[in-house]
Amino acid sequence: MISYKKEFIEFIHNLQDEICESIENEEEKEKFKEDIWERPEGGGGKTRIIENGALIEKGGVNTSIVFGTLPEIMQKQFKVKEGDFFACGISLVLHPNNPFIPTVHANYRYFELYDNDHKLVDMWFAGGSDLTPYYYYEEDAIHFHQINKNTCDKFDAKFYLKYKKSCDNYFYNQHRDEARGIGGLFIDYLRPTSTHSEKFWFDFIKSVGNGFLASYLPIVKKRRENKYTRENKDWQEIRRGRYVEFNLIHDKGTLFGLKTNGRIESILMSLPPRVQWVYNFKPVKDSAESKTLDILKTPKDYKLN
Amino acid sequence: MISYKKEFIEFIHNLQDEICESIENEEEKEKFKEDIWERPEGGGGKTRIIENGALIEKGGVNTSIVFGTLPEIMQKQFKVKEGDFFACGISLVLHPNNPFIPTVHANYRYFELYDNDHKLVDMWFAGGSDLTPYYYYEEDAIHFHQINKNTCDKFDAKFYLKYKKSCDNYFYNQHRDEARGIGGLFIDYLRPTSTHSEKFWFDFIKSVGNGFLASYLPIVKKRRENKYTRENKDWQEIRRGRYVEFNLIHDKGTLFGLKTNGRIESILMSLPPRVQWVYNFKPVKDSAESKTLDILKTPKDYKLN
Repeated sequence: MISYKKEFIEFIHNLQDEICESIENEEEKEKFKEDIWERPEGGGGKTRIIENGALIEKGGVNTSIVFGTLPEIMQKQFKVKEGDFFACGISLVLHPNNPFIPTVHANYRYFELYDNDHKLVDMWFAGGSDLTPYYYYEEDAIHFHQINKNTCDKFDAKFYLKYKKSCDNYFYNQHRDEARGIGGLFIDYLRPTSTHSEKFWFDFIKSVGNGFLASYLPIVKKRRENKYTRENKDWQEIRRGRYVEFNLIHDKGTLFGLKTNGRIESILMSLPPRVQWVYNFKPVKDSAESKTLDILKTPKDYKLN
Repeated sequence: MISYKKEFIEFIHNLQDEICESIENEEEKEKFKEDIWERPEGGGGKTRIIENGALIEKGGVNTSIVFGTLPEIMQKQFKVKEGDFFACGISLVLHPNNPFIPTVHANYRYFELYDNDHKLVDMWFAGGSDLTPYYYYEEDAIHFHQINKNTCDKFDAKFYLKYKKSCDNYFYNQHRDEARGIGGLFIDYLRPTSTHSEKFWFDFIKSVGNGFLASYLPIVKKRRENKYTRENKDWQEIRRGRYVEFNLIHDKGTLFGLKTNGRIESILMSLPPRVQWVYNFKPVKDSAESKTLDILKTPKDYKLN
């Protein structure tokens, strides 16, 4: 196995800079603020947060590089004995002000495991992104998925549908019987094999990550001038409640981070800025809100090129 | 074993009426609205919700009576084989508008287990209440705990400290290393023994429940005229975020309800109406906000009579 530590670290730091810069170019009021933190057991991260912007109500674009002795809870999860690990990744969530712009989440990450002789014994790439609209526009959903599909198709014609389906399965609020959003890609455990080298998987995840801005920014630009009312904002804040429910009840990454003593404020930066819980809220029949909810009840297969 | 089904059902319905009536007497703008629901597998409940009141921003005072085949997940939790169960209880959460009035939670419940011949093989009483202030007033905390202690002391001089300690342990946001609030009582698995009869435990839980209004209403009356600013409200909404985190990440009752296909809207009525997550928010040093936070970092033993 060939380690891609160096290459992956370079990739996530470049992507973090590129995404923050592109968002700041669209944002008139605020800039990202950076917190650099250290992990007592090894490694650390660069957390970049933007709050109360004109465009972005709250967002984070974080990188972290952590390593050391594999915590017991990770030994159990990966079903391995004691040893060392290395993990790095970029994780982002953007909650725009305007309820007509969807919330977006993405992360791209890399993992290495070593035995007691510090020999690399396992490695994998992972990542993906998903979109959470408050008001459904079919053309926006198609755009987002088409960009993902274009990237996937360069590597394998079967990838897009495979990882799109994983995404629909993963970002699902079982207790509400509805999807968190309209999906995207969810890719995990990409290990080198005789047919797919380390380089192949690295190039794949890198391409997916480098396609993020092309998948999201055009939607931002298209919807940012939409006028909205207090009612639109209320709906957005109620739906953000479902986002919180997913992240705190179901999201393996979040719960894993909390259990392994990760940096709380970096993990929970994903939570939206202002949220409402209204008892048994039901949108008006045939309204834009209720049509969006219908879409979330049954993840859709989009007609793509 | 002597079943207390009939008595417990009467107790929770009376208490539900009494609490709703007392809150409505204090509330000038809104009344509770009742939703009666049925559980497909057996039983149902009466959910009573108040929203956007002058005093109560959101609150629920719910009763439920459910029974039938013991779900597999409950078999695992109670480490028993298949059989039937019966459970009933009252559960309430009140989120006041005024940030100087604490949020309060209480529940009182009763459980029966039967073997395959429908013979009663196990039963227990449980319950308690806890207070979550946004601004700490020592005299309010003492009042709340003193009422609980007065009730406990009538039954056993050791009860108050025992169940107060359980409460401090239970309502703890491990991932933040801080308590949800200033505690109260957390009582579980009160089973009849040779020294403590069914009647003894029923009388105890009933007394604790019947003391709820005396523990909370005087605090409401004392703080309801406090003037507050947008900054006080922001702090309340940020702290409500911690309430959400506890209920969705740690609260066994909530997670159990979600996993056993309980009525979602009745379970999640506990979530606050308006909530904020601000990245890495730190209150100003020596402010009222920071003093409240200090109290939550180390659960306190109050000097009571």
